[in-house]
Amino acid sequence: MYQPINLAEKLARFQDHWAPRVIAEMNDYQFKLVKLEGEFVWHAHEDTDEAFLVLRGEMEIAFRDGAVTLRAGELFVVPKGREHITRATAECQALILEPRGVVNTGDAGGNLTAAQDAWI
Amino acid sequence: MYQPINLAEKLARFQDHWAPRVIAEMNDYQFKLVKLEGEFVWHAHEDTDEAFLVLRGEMEIAFRDGAVTLRAGELFVVPKGREHITRATAECQALILEPRGVVNTGDAGGNLTAAQDAWI
Repeated sequence: MYQPINLAEKLARFQDHWAPRVIAEMNDYQFKLVKLEGEFVWHAHEDTDEAFLVLRGEMEIAFRDGAVTLRAGELFVVPKGREHITRATAECQALILEPRGVVNTGDAGGNLTAAQDAWI
Repeated sequence: MYQPINLAEKLARFQDHWAPRVIAEMNDYQFKLVKLEGEFVWHAHEDTDEAFLVLRGEMEIAFRDGAVTLRAGELFVVPKGREHITRATAECQALILEPRGVVNTGDAGGNLTAAQDAWI
């Protein structure tokens, strides 16, 4: 009846990059897993902060005035409205937390915009 | 200017059990680290879900009608209003996510009630 959500087991179910998968909801927030490799697009989320916890590998979150590198076991919260871009030279796996309905490309749109509510 | 939050480094800063430490905020939510060992108290949070991600060790979340065991890399969201108790036979380290202001003992109170906004 009560089942744990195993992150590794969920991560094994998809291989594509930049397409977050929802694994759990908490109130009106969603936990999402994502695999990143290469460079995303500059964008901002005008209405919400966005949290990243790296599970494997390494990613960079760059801002117009600096950057942060996250490795496995490191967390960062991108402030609401702050323009940013994510990059990973090799595949990085991360857990994202943000409100339900947030579009991955924020205000930027484009062909990296992922489906909403893609549960695994 | 932008610094990652390293979970292991934060966990090394405290040793006591059942006393969550805030490490980050996202909108009106807080990420907290906690070390659990032994048994907590039966309680519920009437207004909010509560998420647990185990980082090290193993814990049980028991309900009146079942239980779930969480190991490192496993996530569970306790539904709003659901009475539960947490237990760990050996020390378990977990990341908790819940709204700012949530009291760890919920509606139960008692001497395991921890300080609010205990940042590390």
